[in-house]
Amino acid sequence: MGMLPLFLTFFVAIFAVTSKGSEDSIAHQIHLLRPQSGSGGGRIPGLSCLSWRLGVETNNIIGWSTVPEACEGYIGHYVLGSQYRKDSKVVTDEAIVYAKSLNLTKDGKDLWVFDIDETSLSNLPYYAHHGFGVEPYNATLFNKWVLTGKGLALPDSLGLYNKLLSLGIKIAFITGRPEDQRNVTATNLKNVGFHSWEKLILKGSSYKGTTAVVYKSAQRENLEESGYRIVGNIGDQWSDLLGTHVGKRTFKLPDPLYYIS
Amino acid sequence: MGMLPLFLTFFVAIFAVTSKGSEDSIAHQIHLLRPQSGSGGGRIPGLSCLSWRLGVETNNIIGWSTVPEACEGYIGHYVLGSQYRKDSKVVTDEAIVYAKSLNLTKDGKDLWVFDIDETSLSNLPYYAHHGFGVEPYNATLFNKWVLTGKGLALPDSLGLYNKLLSLGIKIAFITGRPEDQRNVTATNLKNVGFHSWEKLILKGSSYKGTTAVVYKSAQRENLEESGYRIVGNIGDQWSDLLGTHVGKRTFKLPDPLYYIS
Repeated sequence: MGMLPLFLTFFVAIFAVTSKGSEDSIAHQIHLLRPQSGSGGGRIPGLSCLSWRLGVETNNIIGWSTVPEACEGYIGHYVLGSQYRKDSKVVTDEAIVYAKSLNLTKDGKDLWVFDIDETSLSNLPYYAHHGFGVEPYNATLFNKWVLTGKGLALPDSLGLYNKLLSLGIKIAFITGRPEDQRNVTATNLKNVGFHSWEKLILKGSSYKGTTAVVYKSAQRENLEESGYRIVGNIGDQWSDLLGTHVGKRTFKLPDPLYYIS
Repeated sequence: MGMLPLFLTFFVAIFAVTSKGSEDSIAHQIHLLRPQSGSGGGRIPGLSCLSWRLGVETNNIIGWSTVPEACEGYIGHYVLGSQYRKDSKVVTDEAIVYAKSLNLTKDGKDLWVFDIDETSLSNLPYYAHHGFGVEPYNATLFNKWVLTGKGLALPDSLGLYNKLLSLGIKIAFITGRPEDQRNVTATNLKNVGFHSWEKLILKGSSYKGTTAVVYKSAQRENLEESGYRIVGNIGDQWSDLLGTHVGKRTFKLPDPLYYIS
């Protein structure tokens, strides 16, 4: 729908680039950058779900509570399809290259922080039944799902986890899951391949009501005060990666399903 | 090429979601998350240029010098096509919503920082002739292009600029362009609609060799010491938005053409 004219535009533009030599000629082809009417230039009507997702991943779109209704199908296809896997793998591949480049001291104090939900364990079986983020968050139903212990491993995150262990880096999970989900979370992690860890930190009742940024920053500070060096930090939410004591380098996995501040 | 099986997979998966009721059933459909062989799960072969671009935009892929050769066509189509505009507009729309929500003091000290290249002025006419970021950066040729003063306005950035001015917010341009390009830059900005500003800060010779993060942080600190409040900050590079004194909120425009640290 509407794709043919778009493709034709591309070919015309590319043809113009290759058939003429001056920068003036291309300027006229870059029609989408030419101001049209008013101050804002040409209007691009409608919501692009791809642009919405990019806006979320780049932390431009913040504080949202649900996926736009018009994007349910798009997001569903994305997370069930190969692009989500490819997008995740690019991130973990970069993380592995980075980890291998580190000058590790091998004193058992090099630590990598993993978030859990949508970073280590996937809740896709739940979200596939609840509108892929379009339905408002329902704590009762989500906690019921968590208690089944049936979260799936994110395969590329599991690959990173194993590589980090083989390099002698310790793992600390820091999750917003509450302390009373410790046993089911530990069992779920082990069942899908995350077999051991240095720390498994759940959100204690004293942090109830605080943001993830505040809670996770405090936990990372505790770890550093205990002598650990956070050499890496991976999460699906910017709130895993912002704040203080974020680590030597952070990695943002894709997550278009929900937003946690 | 290979799209039909992919689409079929989507439909099978979606059909399964809607035709069965339990979370167990969907778990078996989420085949891309099921571990296959080894620790890393199923292999996704080849470079996905879309994933590469997302990795760049999310600051996961850093320190790169050129666009992967295999992605020249993809990036060319992206920046000449409507998706780049849509992706940009989502960012500037968010910025406008945010700006309108601010409780401004109207004392002339509310300031918004704009980067210039690929934030205010587009160098697409240059990059279209130089491999869309695949060719290594050539300072001589790029500076020759800059001196033509033919940079195009990024229409959505221009829209944001006008909206901010109408709200009484002052504009400061902070650019990595050197001081000796002041006149051509000022003229180029005015010619395409960025008609006035509170500050136009170019990179003085004392910052030669320092990173953009260091140089731009120092400039923003100077502005705050002069009494300005940086209520917003927009750039196409993470080095525009990281460091210190980054502003109350930052906005990352897309730029898959080059990386500046």
